[in-house]
Amino acid sequence: MTHWIAVDWGTTALRITRMDGIRPVDTRQNDKGMNALSHDDFERVFIDLAGDWIDGPTDVLACGMVGARQGWAEAAYRTVPCAAAGGELTHAPTKDPRLNVSIVPGVRQLKPHPDVMRGEETQIAGILARQPDFDGVACLPGTHTKWAHLSAGEIVSFRTVMTGELFADLTGRSVLRHSLAGDGWDEEAFVAAVSDALSRPEILTARLFELRAADLLHGQDAATGRAILSGLLIGAELAATKPWWLGRDAIITGSSKTTHAYATALKSQGLSPTLLPADEMTLAGLAALRDA
Amino acid sequence: MTHWIAVDWGTTALRITRMDGIRPVDTRQNDKGMNALSHDDFERVFIDLAGDWIDGPTDVLACGMVGARQGWAEAAYRTVPCAAAGGELTHAPTKDPRLNVSIVPGVRQLKPHPDVMRGEETQIAGILARQPDFDGVACLPGTHTKWAHLSAGEIVSFRTVMTGELFADLTGRSVLRHSLAGDGWDEEAFVAAVSDALSRPEILTARLFELRAADLLHGQDAATGRAILSGLLIGAELAATKPWWLGRDAIITGSSKTTHAYATALKSQGLSPTLLPADEMTLAGLAALRDA
Repeated sequence: MTHWIAVDWGTTALRITRMDGIRPVDTRQNDKGMNALSHDDFERVFIDLAGDWIDGPTDVLACGMVGARQGWAEAAYRTVPCAAAGGELTHAPTKDPRLNVSIVPGVRQLKPHPDVMRGEETQIAGILARQPDFDGVACLPGTHTKWAHLSAGEIVSFRTVMTGELFADLTGRSVLRHSLAGDGWDEEAFVAAVSDALSRPEILTARLFELRAADLLHGQDAATGRAILSGLLIGAELAATKPWWLGRDAIITGSSKTTHAYATALKSQGLSPTLLPADEMTLAGLAALRDA
Repeated sequence: MTHWIAVDWGTTALRITRMDGIRPVDTRQNDKGMNALSHDDFERVFIDLAGDWIDGPTDVLACGMVGARQGWAEAAYRTVPCAAAGGELTHAPTKDPRLNVSIVPGVRQLKPHPDVMRGEETQIAGILARQPDFDGVACLPGTHTKWAHLSAGEIVSFRTVMTGELFADLTGRSVLRHSLAGDGWDEEAFVAAVSDALSRPEILTARLFELRAADLLHGQDAATGRAILSGLLIGAELAATKPWWLGRDAIITGSSKTTHAYATALKSQGLSPTLLPADEMTLAGLAALRDA
């Protein structure tokens, strides 16, 4: 049986890929992430989406929040420093006897600060499958961006920053939403704000309300406001994660839009990051895990 | 006619006080703040709450977001440096001929950064009515906390920090809500977090996700998590507003709970702030304006 299904099941989305060995054949996705589901929903939601792909005994290998306590089945954490790929898979119970579902363990850090990841370890396994000798930092932008120091095939340490969630909250629900509507962008304002936040990180929370005042008093463009907000948050993130990226090679693995912003920010600090697409890295990671 | 109605109409609440000269007689409030209303709702909502207080021609003096563009009538801004009390009142149109509604102008700052306030200028007028010679900083904690440098009866400059809104969003809607439920408090953790954020402000956004990880990995108490979050945000705010409070006398005017947190934070930095209740200061400010 060379066919199997690779599953990336996160907080807000489910993405499944029919695999033939290490080769992706077809991909489907929906917005039924862990946040939208209760414990008993996972099998039904999976079968609804996979549909005709399940034509007999089917291996399924899943990573992400599907392994959280509120997920399909709680998967263990491995503790850094540890290999990017490895550890025992957790078997998820199913009513449908054709399904053989395994969930990848997450990775945790106990010192110097507590931290956890579920899903990103698989992207990192994909990065290291592609570049086994990489030594440097992997930046995985998202709702909760991860910065991981990789060396000798291992995740040495990592740091999570909630930049994506903060940006979504501030643009979507805070008083700033009135001044930051739309999808516009202002690259110059973004780069200046990154630099501001990096050189004066203590000013971050005070700068936020300025975006509202600049609109009310000067009619500041929403595109400029959005770019400044993004730049301030990413600049603050770079200030917090400097021990991870300073003087190291960098790989950024994310969606195209966030990857662009992080690449621009790191380039403004003299780095030359390599960009690798997140979906591909997840599949490469799952394929490497299945192969092992 | 010595009776009039003092109105504090903010983003999330309406509070009205029947006044006899400078003496408050009775107070009523509800949650019909500006955010919940459209332009045409204000007169009806006010009459519903004031009810039997309107027994003939009635003067109404209002401050707060009621004077915003989305409010009852848009009031002007005065520009700092300016007296805390003063400027032309804006007459709000009413269908009920018995009502004579005036709205206090807001205050804006054009340099060194754009900033606005609506309502806090009236609290400041109340503070200066109580302490005319005060020279120092007024800290007005709330959804959008204001720090105002007061000298010679004037507002010299000010800075708004969205600490209250960030705290509400992070505890109520972000992924952290799972780890920060309830009303508990841990004073020691709060003070330590204030100090951490003040000495290493660059770490703020990275420290946020730690609150989730510390719960998942170490079962950190929600009360401790809430206190750390509040301490990190207020510590970051103190780092951003240091030019306003460092080496100055300080007055804190807010609700009892937030006032306590800010007082503890400022005391940890060697200040001895005076606490004045926000509601009283608003009434004192409106009475001073009416008197002028």
